[in-house]
Amino acid sequence: MQDKLDQLKARLARISDLRRAASVLSWDQETHMPPGGVQARAEHLGTLRGLAHELFITDEVGMLLDDLQPYAEQLPYDSDEASLIRVMRREYDKAVRVPVAWVEQNARTTSLAHHTWVQAKNRNQFSLFQDDLARVVDLQKQWAEYFAPYDNIYDPLLDRYERSLDTAQVSAVFAGMKPALVELVQAIAERADAVDDSLLRRPLDAQRQLAFGQVLSARLGYDYQRGRLDVSAHPFTSGFSPGDVRITTLVDPDNFFRCVKSSIHEAGHAMHGQNLKPSLFRTGLDWGAGMAIGESQSRFYENIIGRSRAFWAYFLPTMKAIFAPLLDDVALEPFYRAINKVEPSLIRVKADEVTYGLHIVLRFELEDDLLNGRVAVADLPQEWNARMEAYLGIVPPTDTDGVLQDVHWSSGMFGYFPDYQLGSLFAVQLWEAMQRDLPAISGDIAAGRFEGVLGWLREHVMQHGRKFTLPELSERVTGVPLSWEPYVHYVREKMGEIYGF
Amino acid sequence: MQDKLDQLKARLARISDLRRAASVLSWDQETHMPPGGVQARAEHLGTLRGLAHELFITDEVGMLLDDLQPYAEQLPYDSDEASLIRVMRREYDKAVRVPVAWVEQNARTTSLAHHTWVQAKNRNQFSLFQDDLARVVDLQKQWAEYFAPYDNIYDPLLDRYERSLDTAQVSAVFAGMKPALVELVQAIAERADAVDDSLLRRPLDAQRQLAFGQVLSARLGYDYQRGRLDVSAHPFTSGFSPGDVRITTLVDPDNFFRCVKSSIHEAGHAMHGQNLKPSLFRTGLDWGAGMAIGESQSRFYENIIGRSRAFWAYFLPTMKAIFAPLLDDVALEPFYRAINKVEPSLIRVKADEVTYGLHIVLRFELEDDLLNGRVAVADLPQEWNARMEAYLGIVPPTDTDGVLQDVHWSSGMFGYFPDYQLGSLFAVQLWEAMQRDLPAISGDIAAGRFEGVLGWLREHVMQHGRKFTLPELSERVTGVPLSWEPYVHYVREKMGEIYGF
Repeated sequence: MQDKLDQLKARLARISDLRRAASVLSWDQETHMPPGGVQARAEHLGTLRGLAHELFITDEVGMLLDDLQPYAEQLPYDSDEASLIRVMRREYDKAVRVPVAWVEQNARTTSLAHHTWVQAKNRNQFSLFQDDLARVVDLQKQWAEYFAPYDNIYDPLLDRYERSLDTAQVSAVFAGMKPALVELVQAIAERADAVDDSLLRRPLDAQRQLAFGQVLSARLGYDYQRGRLDVSAHPFTSGFSPGDVRITTLVDPDNFFRCVKSSIHEAGHAMHGQNLKPSLFRTGLDWGAGMAIGESQSRFYENIIGRSRAFWAYFLPTMKAIFAPLLDDVALEPFYRAINKVEPSLIRVKADEVTYGLHIVLRFELEDDLLNGRVAVADLPQEWNARMEAYLGIVPPTDTDGVLQDVHWSSGMFGYFPDYQLGSLFAVQLWEAMQRDLPAISGDIAAGRFEGVLGWLREHVMQHGRKFTLPELSERVTGVPLSWEPYVHYVREKMGEIYGF
Repeated sequence: MQDKLDQLKARLARISDLRRAASVLSWDQETHMPPGGVQARAEHLGTLRGLAHELFITDEVGMLLDDLQPYAEQLPYDSDEASLIRVMRREYDKAVRVPVAWVEQNARTTSLAHHTWVQAKNRNQFSLFQDDLARVVDLQKQWAEYFAPYDNIYDPLLDRYERSLDTAQVSAVFAGMKPALVELVQAIAERADAVDDSLLRRPLDAQRQLAFGQVLSARLGYDYQRGRLDVSAHPFTSGFSPGDVRITTLVDPDNFFRCVKSSIHEAGHAMHGQNLKPSLFRTGLDWGAGMAIGESQSRFYENIIGRSRAFWAYFLPTMKAIFAPLLDDVALEPFYRAINKVEPSLIRVKADEVTYGLHIVLRFELEDDLLNGRVAVADLPQEWNARMEAYLGIVPPTDTDGVLQDVHWSSGMFGYFPDYQLGSLFAVQLWEAMQRDLPAISGDIAAGRFEGVLGWLREHVMQHGRKFTLPELSERVTGVPLSWEPYVHYVREKMGEIYGF
């Protein structure tokens, strides 16, 4: 059996290499590629992703998985070997339904659509993007059809990013959370003046903002010997091995906290990648579904840590020194309140911890409607704006501030958005468990000791890669299923203290 | 037949994509990859290069080439189709002799050896690199054995970089050139004081040096919409498509002309890539052997243009303005003489047009001896130093200034060095032909009009990709075979005027 397992691993390693190489090309496309490279890059990505798929769906892989099934059943469920065989069995059964031609076509189409989206966003003109987006949507619908019959055409897409998650489950979670958030937004709206965040708009030097982002991410445990920080229009993390996980961030001239929180968010993702158990690298357990788990790590660092009083008790003096004299007069409490101000706003990635969830609900419902044909691609701008008004009471003045703001659709990532919010929910559950295990953790954070946080997350989440589904991990780590209540409790407490209700 | 040709092209396009993707990964490794990425990158490159090879040496490709042979014979020799079939036939017959395992192993070994070489060079310690180099050399010997019987084990390696070139031919060319260069070096040594290049050591701001390199390369015709300039330890060009050909350069604090000439040299390579006939992209005619032709383009721009009086008659005022006031007092003649000073020196890439050839002869002879077992890897440092003393009269004080100076061996590029000098020789023959075709070309250059140069090179050389061998191209463009005499005549005339003999 060891021989068959080795054969399977050798095949998976090659496939992993092709996927990682494609990631390098995508990273390059976002950060360094000249405009002239667009067409050829689409071809390169089509070939790499197509070949990876082709090598995965061979009969040989299927037979190895068949042969290894009885072996896996003798092993502990959570062993690396049993997990590898279990997860790959599922991925294989899904992958064989999808033709290589679709994978190549999708890689090419999204590579080009991404470029068109950048142009449309820069020129604030949805119509420039519409045809490309329609092509991308058609491809996603076609993909879903490979998994028919389904309860909802959106189900296969959700499953692509977080295994076993379907529309009904997400709807149930969001149905519980949404009214609570809406109520909270209203309660806060009545006390909007209680928090002043104007200090975040002080114009700070961009180079020093980036340097501070680097300081924060490094201190939290992101290893720059195994990574680097670049600037891109839409911050992202890209990992090619545990030894090379790169992050990007941005500088917003209107709000210096965006560079801070983007740097911390992406560092959270990147530490997840850097702390994978080394033996899982180049297996199928280092890529694929698990994005809500991934977002739980980035949102944990961004929100639970990066918007906490303890964290800034420690880091405010450093920040003031780096930007001296521009923040000399800033005290902890006003700063803590400013970075936690709750206010309906147009852009998801600028949103606070409360309204963020509503941005996600909007996208989830809109994707569901789009894929089910209840909304047409051409109608997306007006649908977007109508729902923004309904959920947050504001209407984007431009498409760039509305339907064009996110990169995801250009990349074919329909079904990904819910994972951000599910990650936020899970992050709170992780935080409760961490506090139980490490009662002194808030004190450690306030004293600038972050090894405890990273060590706990490494042990319970990061090292496992894709071994477990979100429900499995939730049960293992927190002892209870994923739930929206702890999150709502957390934001209600936190905002209640800040806003005084 | 069109159908079979299309099938062949589809297969070659995929293979081309894999090779180009590997080039992106190599470019990234040189310019942006963090140290932790070394091991995984070696695996990624092994997989990409191994798969490209595996896809090429299939029976299907062989049968398509067999079937297309009669068709190719009906077409004009220089048509794209006949050239594709002819060149791929030859590449295929060679490739099938080489196992995939060798290709993977070579990619991994050289990727790691490159990293070791960087460390050894930084620490000035050949012993750190010795074991890796021995592994690389063994792999190259093994590769040559796949082509046994040969006249000289070095032949298959030379052929790898420039088709149909063998040790005997290179020896014959160098045997003619070498005494002439040695005599010229001696004649100049007697008048060494005639040229003062101290002005090149004025400390100029690094950022402005890079900006000037960008200005020069752009004005010569390198299109930055389809490329970019970065900094790396060893300047190089890397092309992923005609729409994305990137260059790197360096800044030498001891000599500002190095940034100038590196930028121009790499721009020459890159224009070659950018000006490929678009229909040859993603065919087998856009990669592979042809490095002497490639170097003829870079060396043409670096030397024939970039060290000419006409070029600097035009660009000196711009340079003075960019670096004002540090070069305000510099006049054309002293500058022209300074950048053409002939002086034996330790580093090949710093060498003048005369001694450069002797650096190449040294490497050619040393590689020949190494591969034939007349010199051992462990003895390379002392052999290097002894030959430097014999040919140039100087002995490197350190390995970094001697045997460790070039990147090539770490990448397994044995057999490449001669192409630099053959490229220099061919560049002079191209220059003679260009002057016949365009009698006003020197005046154009002095007036800052460079379209004529690029247009002529595009028509006669660049657009053809790998269609022709160096002898074929030489006959087509210049009407005579490749020869060393025009080069020696050119440097003798040029240096005679400068040094007054």
